[in-house]
Amino acid sequence: MSDASEEALGWRVLAREGGARAGELQTRRGVIETPVFMPVGTLGTVKGVRFEELEAEDLDARIILGNTYHLLLRPGPEVIRACGGLHRFTGWRRALLTDSGGFQVFSLADMRRVAEEGVKFRSHIDGRLCFLSPEVSMEVQAALGSDIVMAFDECLPGQAAHEAARASMELTARWARRSRTRFDELQRDSADAGRIEEGANASGEGLKGLSGRQALFGIVQGATHSDLRRESLERTAEVGFDGYAIGGLSVGEEKPVMYEVVEGLAPLMPDERPRYLMGVGTPEDLVECVARGVDMFDCVIPTRNGRNGQAFTSRGRLNVKNAQWSQDARPLDEACACAVCRRHSRAYVRHLYMAGEMLAAVLLSHHNLAFFLDTMRRVRQAIRSGDFTRFRLEFIERINSGLV
Amino acid sequence: MSDASEEALGWRVLAREGGARAGELQTRRGVIETPVFMPVGTLGTVKGVRFEELEAEDLDARIILGNTYHLLLRPGPEVIRACGGLHRFTGWRRALLTDSGGFQVFSLADMRRVAEEGVKFRSHIDGRLCFLSPEVSMEVQAALGSDIVMAFDECLPGQAAHEAARASMELTARWARRSRTRFDELQRDSADAGRIEEGANASGEGLKGLSGRQALFGIVQGATHSDLRRESLERTAEVGFDGYAIGGLSVGEEKPVMYEVVEGLAPLMPDERPRYLMGVGTPEDLVECVARGVDMFDCVIPTRNGRNGQAFTSRGRLNVKNAQWSQDARPLDEACACAVCRRHSRAYVRHLYMAGEMLAAVLLSHHNLAFFLDTMRRVRQAIRSGDFTRFRLEFIERINSGLV
Repeated sequence: MSDASEEALGWRVLAREGGARAGELQTRRGVIETPVFMPVGTLGTVKGVRFEELEAEDLDARIILGNTYHLLLRPGPEVIRACGGLHRFTGWRRALLTDSGGFQVFSLADMRRVAEEGVKFRSHIDGRLCFLSPEVSMEVQAALGSDIVMAFDECLPGQAAHEAARASMELTARWARRSRTRFDELQRDSADAGRIEEGANASGEGLKGLSGRQALFGIVQGATHSDLRRESLERTAEVGFDGYAIGGLSVGEEKPVMYEVVEGLAPLMPDERPRYLMGVGTPEDLVECVARGVDMFDCVIPTRNGRNGQAFTSRGRLNVKNAQWSQDARPLDEACACAVCRRHSRAYVRHLYMAGEMLAAVLLSHHNLAFFLDTMRRVRQAIRSGDFTRFRLEFIERINSGLV
Repeated sequence: MSDASEEALGWRVLAREGGARAGELQTRRGVIETPVFMPVGTLGTVKGVRFEELEAEDLDARIILGNTYHLLLRPGPEVIRACGGLHRFTGWRRALLTDSGGFQVFSLADMRRVAEEGVKFRSHIDGRLCFLSPEVSMEVQAALGSDIVMAFDECLPGQAAHEAARASMELTARWARRSRTRFDELQRDSADAGRIEEGANASGEGLKGLSGRQALFGIVQGATHSDLRRESLERTAEVGFDGYAIGGLSVGEEKPVMYEVVEGLAPLMPDERPRYLMGVGTPEDLVECVARGVDMFDCVIPTRNGRNGQAFTSRGRLNVKNAQWSQDARPLDEACACAVCRRHSRAYVRHLYMAGEMLAAVLLSHHNLAFFLDTMRRVRQAIRSGDFTRFRLEFIERINSGLV
C-alpha cells in the first residue's frame, strides 16, 4: 500500500488468486472494495435508477461515473460549478469518477477534427462548435469536482492499423503529460469543486489519511498491437498517475482479441496502483477480466439493455418481450434477491414493457445493476476465500446453461 | 358506523367541521384515513413511481387506482386472473380501487357506440372491436380482484343539455342495478381474484370484522343539472352500495359549476357511507371539495403534470423548464419534506428535464404525489383538531401567493 498521507487515493491488495486481485480503494468519498463495477451516470443520473436505490443494500454502488462530454454540453460546467460541483448539483454523496470526454468525442466520427492542440467537434445536440483538449478536460473535471479524473486521450477503432495506432498512442502520451500538468495546477489553485477539507467529511470514512484532492488516472492506448500497448503503458507510467486504465477496448474488436490484450497488458501495469478497464462489459467479461488482473470496470449495458427489455440473469439473458413470460409468476432471476426480484414477476415486467410504461426500464435497470454488482460482490468473496477459480468456472457454465 | 361483520367495507366519521368530514375507511387490505387522495395506477403502475416509494413515509399511499378499460386491453383480464389478480400480478399489497371503464370509454368519443346492453368501442391501441357492459365490467373487476369496484356508468360532457343528461342518467341508473346484480352473483360464486379468506391476511389489519369480499360503489350522474343529480342519487341509493361516487365532473364544465354541483349534492349523499368525487382535481379542488363534504379523490394530474415538467408546491405551480431555476439550489418546494425535496435542487430537476432524462418524470411525479398526499394529511389533522376553516383559508391564500 502506498503512503496515503500525501495521496489523493489509497490502494491496497487484500488477496490474490492467479492474476485476480481483491483490493480496497480509498477515495475521499468512501472506501470501495474491488473488483468493482461502476454504474454509468452519463448526465448526472444513472438512467432510471434513483440514488436511494443505488445506495440501498441490494445495489450498494460505492462509485458511479459521470461523462465529461455530456455534462459539458448539458448543463455546462459553469452551471455545475455554480451549484458547487457535481456531487452537490446532483445530490450523489458517494464517490464519482468522470471520464475525460475523449471516448465520446471519438464516437462522433466525422463531426470531429483531431489536432495536436485538441479536438474540435460539433455538439450532437445542436451542432454547436466545441473544443476539448487535455487542459479543457482537466478544467471541466475540476468544475465537476469528481473524485477520480481521467486523463484526456484519443481512442481509435479496435481494428486500427499499426501506423495509425502508433501516431494516436503517441498523441495520447503527449496529452497524458499535458493532462498531468494542468491537473496539478488546478489542484494547487484549489479549482476542484469537489474538494474536501480535512475534517469536513461528515463520515470521515474516505478522507482518513488522504489529501482530500482529486485523483488522476492515466489511460493506456495502442489498439490491439501489443508492442504499442506496452510502449503506451511505459510512457503513461513515466508521467505517473494514481491509477491506470486500459482504454480503446470494446470498440469493435473481436472478444478473444480483447481478452488477449488485457491478458498481455494488465500484469505489466503497476501492481501498486488500481487497474481500470474502460467501457467493459458483459457479466462474463467482468469475471474473465478480473481473472486477468483488472480491478475496476464500467459499462452502460445493464441500464441500456434494461431500457431495451433485456434482463441479465445467472442463467443468461432474458428478453421480456418474449410471449413465453406473459403469465410467468417467477422473478426475472430466481437466484436474485434484489428489490425487483423480491416483488415483481416476469409477467408484470413484461406487461409494463409491452405497454410502454417507464417503470419497465426502471425495474429492468435496477435488476441488471443488482446482478452486475452482486456478481462483483461474489467475485470479491471468492478471491478472498481462495475460491475464485471454481467460482469463475461455475459462473460461466451457469450463465451459458440457458433459462428455464 | 355500519355493522361491519357482514360488510365488505367499514366506515366511520371521526370528526366534522362544517360539511367537512374526517373518517376512517376499513378495507380488506388496510385502514384508510379520509379525506384521502388516491394516486392513479392506470396499467398496474402509478407512472414512474415504484410501490416502495408509494409505501414510504413521505408518500404513504394507502390505496391506488387501476383502470378497467386499460387493463382490459393490456394485458387482459385472463392474464391477470391467471396471475392471481391485480395485487399478485403487480406486487401491490395495499388497497386497490378499480373504475368501471365507463369514463375511459366515454373519452373515446366517436370510436364508441352506446346501447341499452352496453358499449361497443374500438381499442385505442389496435382498433380491435371491444364490448363493455355492467356485466362485463363486473366480471373484469372480479378478475382484477380490486378491493373497491365501481358500478358501470355512462359519463357525458359537462355541458350536456338537460334532455340528453336525463336519458344518460336513467341509463346509468338501470346499469347500476345490473352492476349490483352481476356483482353479487360473482361474489357468491367466489369469482373475485382478490378475495381474502378470514385469517388469511398476514397483518389482519384490514380484514378484522369484514367479509373479505369486494366492495361496490354506485355512481351519481346528471351532468350539471341539480334535479337530475338529485334523482340520480335517489335511484342509486335505492339500489344500495358500499359507497357513493360523484361522476361526470371535471369533464369540461366551468370550475364554479363543478363546486356548485358538489355543494348541492354531497350533503344529500348518505352520511353513513363514504363519498368519492371521481377524477378531481387540483390541490385547491381537493381542499374546496373536502369543505363541501367529499371523502375520496383521484386524479392523474400529479403524475401527468410531473411528466410534463410541472411541480405542485405550497406556493403554486413551478415550471421546471423556466430558465430562472437553472442554478437554483433550493428544493422544488421549500416547505416540502419529501425524499425529492430533501435531496435534489430545482437546478438538478430542471437539468434532467431539459436533457430528456426519465429521472425528471420520476422525481417530479414523486414530489407531486407527496404534495397531494401531504396536503390531505394536513386536511385530516385540521378537521380533527377543529382547525379546518383556518387551514383552508391559509392554504388557498398561500397557494395563490406565487413562487419566490
